[in-house]
Amino acid sequence: MMSKVEITNVKTILTAPEGVNLVVVKVETNQDGLYGVGCATFTQRYLAVETAINEYLKPFLIGKDPQMIEDIWQTAMVSGYWRNGPVLNNAISGIDMALWDIKGKLAGMPVYQLLGGKCREGVACYKHADGNNVQEVTINVRSAMNDGYRYVRCQQGLYGGVDQEIHKPMGALKGSYYHPRAYMNSVIKLFDHLRNTVGWNVELLHDVHERLAPIDAVNFAKKLEKYQLYFLEDLLPPEQISWFENVRQQTSVPIAMGELFNNQHEWQDLITNRLIDFIRIHISQIGGITPAKKLVSLCEAYGVRTAWHGPIDVSPVGHAANIHLDISSINFGIQEWNGFNDAVYEVFTGIPEFKDGYVYPNERPGLGIDIDEEAAAKYPCKNELPEWTLSRLPDGTSARP
Amino acid sequence: MMSKVEITNVKTILTAPEGVNLVVVKVETNQDGLYGVGCATFTQRYLAVETAINEYLKPFLIGKDPQMIEDIWQTAMVSGYWRNGPVLNNAISGIDMALWDIKGKLAGMPVYQLLGGKCREGVACYKHADGNNVQEVTINVRSAMNDGYRYVRCQQGLYGGVDQEIHKPMGALKGSYYHPRAYMNSVIKLFDHLRNTVGWNVELLHDVHERLAPIDAVNFAKKLEKYQLYFLEDLLPPEQISWFENVRQQTSVPIAMGELFNNQHEWQDLITNRLIDFIRIHISQIGGITPAKKLVSLCEAYGVRTAWHGPIDVSPVGHAANIHLDISSINFGIQEWNGFNDAVYEVFTGIPEFKDGYVYPNERPGLGIDIDEEAAAKYPCKNELPEWTLSRLPDGTSARP
Amino acid sequence: MMSKVEITNVKTILTAPEGVNLVVVKVETNQDGLYGVGCATFTQRYLAVETAINEYLKPFLIGKDPQMIEDIWQTAMVSGYWRNGPVLNNAISGIDMALWDIKGKLAGMPVYQLLGGKCREGVACYKHADGNNVQEVTINVRSAMNDGYRYVRCQQGLYGGVDQEIHKPMGALKGSYYHPRAYMNSVIKLFDHLRNTVGWNVELLHDVHERLAPIDAVNFAKKLEKYQLYFLEDLLPPEQISWFENVRQQTSVPIAMGELFNNQHEWQDLITNRLIDFIRIHISQIGGITPAKKLVSLCEAYGVRTAWHGPIDVSPVGHAANIHLDISSINFGIQEWNGFNDAVYEVFTGIPEFKDGYVYPNERPGLGIDIDEEAAAKYPCKNELPEWTLSRLPDGTSARP
Amino acid sequence: MMSKVEITNVKTILTAPEGVNLVVVKVETNQDGLYGVGCATFTQRYLAVETAINEYLKPFLIGKDPQMIEDIWQTAMVSGYWRNGPVLNNAISGIDMALWDIKGKLAGMPVYQLLGGKCREGVACYKHADGNNVQEVTINVRSAMNDGYRYVRCQQGLYGGVDQEIHKPMGALKGSYYHPRAYMNSVIKLFDHLRNTVGWNVELLHDVHERLAPIDAVNFAKKLEKYQLYFLEDLLPPEQISWFENVRQQTSVPIAMGELFNNQHEWQDLITNRLIDFIRIHISQIGGITPAKKLVSLCEAYGVRTAWHGPIDVSPVGHAANIHLDISSINFGIQEWNGFNDAVYEVFTGIPEFKDGYVYPNERPGLGIDIDEEAAAKYPCKNELPEWTLSRLPDGTSARP
Repeated sequence: MMSKVEITNVKTILTAPEGVNLVVVKVETNQDGLYGVGCATFTQRYLAVETAINEYLKPFLIGKDPQMIEDIWQTAMVSGYWRNGPVLNNAISGIDMALWDIKGKLAGMPVYQLLGGKCREGVACYKHADGNNVQEVTINVRSAMNDGYRYVRCQQGLYGGVDQEIHKPMGALKGSYYHPRAYMNSVIKLFDHLRNTVGWNVELLHDVHERLAPIDAVNFAKKLEKYQLYFLEDLLPPEQISWFENVRQQTSVPIAMGELFNNQHEWQDLITNRLIDFIRIHISQIGGITPAKKLVSLCEAYGVRTAWHGPIDVSPVGHAANIHLDISSINFGIQEWNGFNDAVYEVFTGIPEFKDGYVYPNERPGLGIDIDEEAAAKYPCKNELPEWTLSRLPDGTSARP
Repeated sequence: MMSKVEITNVKTILTAPEGVNLVVVKVETNQDGLYGVGCATFTQRYLAVETAINEYLKPFLIGKDPQMIEDIWQTAMVSGYWRNGPVLNNAISGIDMALWDIKGKLAGMPVYQLLGGKCREGVACYKHADGNNVQEVTINVRSAMNDGYRYVRCQQGLYGGVDQEIHKPMGALKGSYYHPRAYMNSVIKLFDHLRNTVGWNVELLHDVHERLAPIDAVNFAKKLEKYQLYFLEDLLPPEQISWFENVRQQTSVPIAMGELFNNQHEWQDLITNRLIDFIRIHISQIGGITPAKKLVSLCEAYGVRTAWHGPIDVSPVGHAANIHLDISSINFGIQEWNGFNDAVYEVFTGIPEFKDGYVYPNERPGLGIDIDEEAAAKYPCKNELPEWTLSRLPDGTSARP
Repeated sequence: MMSKVEITNVKTILTAPEGVNLVVVKVETNQDGLYGVGCATFTQRYLAVETAINEYLKPFLIGKDPQMIEDIWQTAMVSGYWRNGPVLNNAISGIDMALWDIKGKLAGMPVYQLLGGKCREGVACYKHADGNNVQEVTINVRSAMNDGYRYVRCQQGLYGGVDQEIHKPMGALKGSYYHPRAYMNSVIKLFDHLRNTVGWNVELLHDVHERLAPIDAVNFAKKLEKYQLYFLEDLLPPEQISWFENVRQQTSVPIAMGELFNNQHEWQDLITNRLIDFIRIHISQIGGITPAKKLVSLCEAYGVRTAWHGPIDVSPVGHAANIHLDISSINFGIQEWNGFNDAVYEVFTGIPEFKDGYVYPNERPGLGIDIDEEAAAKYPCKNELPEWTLSRLPDGTSARP
Repeated sequence: MMSKVEITNVKTILTAPEGVNLVVVKVETNQDGLYGVGCATFTQRYLAVETAINEYLKPFLIGKDPQMIEDIWQTAMVSGYWRNGPVLNNAISGIDMALWDIKGKLAGMPVYQLLGGKCREGVACYKHADGNNVQEVTINVRSAMNDGYRYVRCQQGLYGGVDQEIHKPMGALKGSYYHPRAYMNSVIKLFDHLRNTVGWNVELLHDVHERLAPIDAVNFAKKLEKYQLYFLEDLLPPEQISWFENVRQQTSVPIAMGELFNNQHEWQDLITNRLIDFIRIHISQIGGITPAKKLVSLCEAYGVRTAWHGPIDVSPVGHAANIHLDISSINFGIQEWNGFNDAVYEVFTGIPEFKDGYVYPNERPGLGIDIDEEAAAKYPCKNELPEWTLSRLPDGTSARP
C-alpha cells in the first residue's frame, strides 16, 4: 500500500522545437516515478507564465495531495485574488493537466476513461492550407485531402491577406498593414475558386482572425454562406462579441469562436443564447482540463460543439489533453491538427497519432505523453516581440490581430 | 335505469399485425356490454407500458366511475408522484381514450360529437413516399397522388439517407451511420427533382427526424424554402428546441414539431412564441384525448395547426382518436395516414375509412373502433431492439435517431 | 493483463428493508469478481422500471464495454426513441451508476476521485423533523441538533398539515384532503415558534411539496422570509415553474427545486435565469451520475448549489452516488440524509458514515457500497398504491401531491 | 331512428324577474320536444342583442345541424365580418349554450359530462356583502357565513363608496361622483375592521371595479396585501391592463380580472405572462361555453383559475353554464353566487342548488335548466339608462365605472 500521495516539486520547462515558445509543467510527487505533465503555453508571454508558476504556484502546491484536483484548481484560482485572465490561467492549466495526468497514472487508465470513456473511436481533424494566392491554397487543400483530411482551413496570405497595395498617410508607423475590403474580396474569390476546383465533398473552414469592423463582419459572413463553410472562425474580436446577435439574424454560416477567451463572461451568453456553434477555446488559456470539461457540459446543453484551439502554439501535451477531451465528449465537433516536425518528436514521446483524417490517443495511463527535458533544452525559447500582432488599418490605426 | 357505472376490469392487449408492437387497453364496466378501448402504444418499450397499466393503473381504476374522465386523468397523472414522461403517459393515454370511448357509447354518439361536433366533413391526409433514390421516390409520390393524396411526405433512404460512403475511424462501433452533409445535399436534390417532375400542384412534406446539428438545421431549412414545403418536420431534436428561434429569424419554411414531446415544457414556449406552425404530437405519448384537446385550444389561440403523429406505431384505436380530434378541431391542419394491411383489418373493426385523399370517422357511438382479442393473439409482439435508433455520425458519435 | 472488459449480465434487485420499494441494478462483467451496482429506484412504479431494465437495457448492454459510459448513456437514452422521462431515466440511472462503480473498481479509486477529487472533507447534511404540532416538531428539531445536525427540515403534519377541519361538498370522493390556507398559516406559526424556542443558530428548511396555487406560493414565500430559512423547497409543481419569476420579484427566500424533474426543459431556464438557488434533483430520475455531473457544471456557472434528493425513496447505492458527487462538486450546498434502519445495514454494506452533522464516503474503489442479494430477498417489495399522492383540495379537486 | 336533426327556430326571450334585464335564447329543432336554452344577457344593451339574434343569427341558423357546435360558432363569429365585441358575442353565446343544451339532451347527459365529467362534487361559491359602513358590511359577512359561505366579497358603499363629501367645481354635471383617495382609505379601514372582528377563518374578496388611476391601483393592492384577500378584482380597467406588470412587481395580492373582456387580446398576455390569478370573464360576453372551455385550457397551462362572472346580470341559464364548467374544470377556483328571488324561480326551473357553501348542478340532460315563457312575460324588461355607469371624479372627469 502506498503512502499518502504528495506533491514534492513543480518544474517549468521551456522549449521551442518548432520555433514557437512552449511552456510545459511537470508536477512531481513523493511516489516513485509518479509525476504528471501539463501545457501552460502562452507563447507571447511565456516568461511571465514561468514566473507565475515558479514563484507562486510551486510553493502553493508542494505538500498538497495531487488527487484533489477540484480543490487545487479552485484555491489556485483565487489565491492571487485578481484572476480570470491570461498568464495566471495558463499557469493553472499546466498544473491542472499534470494533475489529471497523475490521476490517470494512479488509476492505470488513459485520462479519457476518467472523463467518461470513449464515445467515438477517432478524433476527426482539420488542417491549415495557407497560400499567397488561390493557386497555392488550392494545391495545399488538395495536399491535405490526399493526407486523409476531410476538413481544411483555407487562408490566403494567412490573416488579412498579403501583398495588398495599401494607401497609407504620410509618416505611417511600422506595423502589419492590411486592407479590410481587399481582404474580404480576396476571401470570397478564394472560396469561389475552391468550390469550382476541389468541389463540395470536402469541408472548408476559414479564420477571420477578428480583423473586421462589426458590420463588415456581418456582411462578410452573409456573402460566405453560399460556399457552405464548416465554420467561420473569429469573425469578431472578443471586445465586440455582442455583435454575434446581428450576425445570427442574417446568416446561418456556422460560427466558431473563442481562442482568445479567458473566462465565462466571454462565452456564457454566446452559448446559452445560441449565438455560436463551435467553442474554439485554447484550453491552456482557461485553466486546463477541469474548466474545459465543465464548459463541454454547458455547450452540450445548448447544442454547441467543441473545436479546441490546436495550432503550433499548443504544446503536444496540450494537444494530448485536447484529444482526451475530444474522444470522450458527446458534443465534440472537430479538432485543429497540423502535425509536428521531427524536433517535436525528439522532445515529446507519446504524441497522439494521426491516420487518414482521424487522430487517436494512445492507451497509456494518464495523458499518455511525456517530455524529454534534455532534448527540450536543445531547443531554447527566444523572447522576441511578434510582428504579426502589430496589425494596422491603411491609415495606421491599430487593429485587432 | 342503469345502476351507477363502475370500472370492473382493465386489460392490456399486445398485438403486432403489421409487425410493429401495439398496445391497446380495454376498460370494462359493470354495465352489460359496455367497455372502451384506447391506444397506449409505445412500440419500443411496450412491455414497460404493459407493466405500468397492469400493476398500477388497473388497481387504481377498479371501482371508479368511468365518466369522471378529468378527475381520473389528473389523479392518475400524479398517483406515481413522478410523471410527465414516456411509459406512464402512454399508459394513461390508453385509459383516457377508453374512457372517452365509453362516454361516447353512454351518449350514443361518436366521440367527435362530445368534442364539439364536426367542423369539416373529411380529414385531409398525407402519405409517406420513400425510396432509395429520386426515381423511386418520384414513382411513389405519383402513386400516392393517384390514390387521391394531395399531400405527400418524401424521404430518400428513409431518415438520413442510405448508401452513403461513410469515412469512419478505425474500430468504429456498430450502428446506423449517416452523413449529415450528404443527407442534406440529397434532400435538396430530391425536391429539386420532384418540383421539376411532379410539379407544384401537390403539397410536399419532409421529415428531418432530428438528425442535424442546430446550425445545419437552420441552413437546411433556408435552402428548402424555395421548394414550398407544406411543412418541414422534426428539424431539431427535443433537447435543442430553443434553436427554433434561430430558424425563425431566417426562414419562413412551415415548421412541424413534436412527435417526441411528452409534456408542456416542450411545447408551451414553442407555441406561445409562435416558433412552430404544426404540432405533431403522438397523442398516446402525452396521455390521450384529454390533454390533446386542451393542447388544441392552446394552439388555436396562437395560430398553430394540428398534425397528429400517425405512422405504423400508432394503433388503429389511436388513429381513430386522431380522426375524432381532427374532424372537430377548428385548427386542424393535416393528418398522417398510410393505410393498413389485411392483418390489421382482421384484428380491428371500425377503422376510419380513407377515400380520395380524405379519411372519415364512422358514425358508431364512441371511437367507433374495436379490437378482436382472438385475432390479436394471432399476431404476437416481438421484443427486439430497434437498429435505426442507434444512429451514429461518421466518426461514431451517438446521434439523435 | 486482462482481456477486453465486457458486460455479461444485468440484474435488477428489488428490496424494501425500510418498507419502501428500492430498485438496485447489478452490472456484471467477464472479469473475475468485477461488477457494479446502481440505484434505479422509482418507488411508486418500481415494477415498470424493472421491466425497462430486464427487457430492454439488459439485452442492449450485454457484450458492450462498460468503460464507455458516455457512449452507453447516450445510446441507451435514444434507443427507445421516446425518452427524457420517469421509468426509462431511472432504468438508465441504475446502469450509469453501476458503470461508474465498475470504472472506480478498475481504477482502484473511489468514484469521487474520478469526478475531480475531494474539495471538502465531509458532506454537511440536513435531517427531517416532522410532528403533528409545534411541540412535536420542536422536540424533533432539538433531537436532530443533539445528533449533530446543523440543518433541519421542519414539517408540521408532514405535507399539507394534518387534523385540519375540512369543509367538503356532499359526496366528496376519497383522497388525502388538505386546506392550503390552514397549511400556510400553520407553517408560519411553526417557524415563529421554532425561532423563539430553538433560536437562530440552526439552519431551518421547509418543503412545500408543491401544494399551493402559484400566487399563494409567492405570498407564502414572502411571509417566510423573516424566518431566515436555509431554503424553501418545491414551492411550485413542475408544471408551473415559470412562476418562479414572480417569486423572485418579491422575495429573497432561498429556493430549492427539482426532485420531480426529469429533463433539461425543466431545469435549464430556472438555472440560467437565476430563479433557483439549490437544485434538488433525484439523481435516479434524470439518468444517474453522468447527467448529474454535467448538471453540476451548469449550476456552477450560474451560482446554483446542489442539494440532491435523499429521503427513504433513494437506495443506499443512490445515497452513495450523492455523497461522491457532493464531496467532489465545488458548488455543493447540502445533502438530505436521515440515516437507515438495521434492515438496511443488513442488506447493504459500505453505506457512507454519518458523524456529527457530516457524512463521509468510504475509501473503497468505486461507489464503495454493495448489496447482499440474499439479505435483500428477505425484504420483498409490496406493490401498493400510495395514499398520499391522491391529494385533494377541500372541494375535492385533485391537487399536486 | 331519428331523422337528421335540424334547427327550425330561434327565439329571444326578454325578462327581468329581479328587475335586471335578461336575454335568454331558445333554439328549437325538428325533433319532438328537443330544444336548447342559452344566456345572451347584456343587460345594458339587451335590445341590440335581441336584434342581432332575431335579424341575423336566426336566419343564419335555421336548417343547420345543431350538433355542429364548433362549426356554427366559428361561422357565426365571422358572418358579420366585424367581430370580437359585445352585443354580437352575447348573441352567439345564447346560441352556443343552447346548442350544448341540445347536445346534452341528445346524449342523455348533463353538459358537464360532455366537458370531461365531474372533477369535484360541489362548486364552492362566494357571496356579496355590501353595506354603507363597516358595521353593515360586517353584519352581512356574518350573515353569509351563517348561510354556509366560506368566501365573501366585501364592498362598502358598493363601488367607490358612498356619502363621501366631494369637493366639486362650480357647475358640476350630474353623475355618480366618487373620491379615489377616500374610497381607498375606506376599504383599508373596512378590511382592518373585518379581520379584527370576523377573523381569518373566512376568505374575503374585494372588487375595485376599475375606479383607480394605475399607480394608485398598485399602491392600493400593496396596502391590502396584509389582509390576505382571496382575490382583488378589477383593479384596473381593460384599457390599462398592461399595468398589471407593475402590480406584480410589488405585491402578491391575488388578482382577479376579466368581467369586461370580450376577446383574446385582453386575456392572452395576462395569462401567459402570469399577471393574473383568476379569470373573471362573463361567459355570455365572449360567446358561450365553446370559447370558455378553450379559455379554461389556456388558463390551466399557466396556473390561472376560473371565477366566472355571476351576479344578477347573468341569467340562471348562464349560471347553469357556469356551474357545468366549474364542476368539470380542473383549474376552477371559485364561483360568484348570490341566490335568486322568488320571481326567478317562477320563471326558471332546474336552477342549480346552493347548500352550505357549495352549489350543485342537477343531473338532467343538457344544462338542466328551462325557462317558462309565460312566466317570463310577466316580468318585462325596462329600457333605462343606468346611473351607476356615469362615474365621475371629484372634478367631473368621466371615470371608469
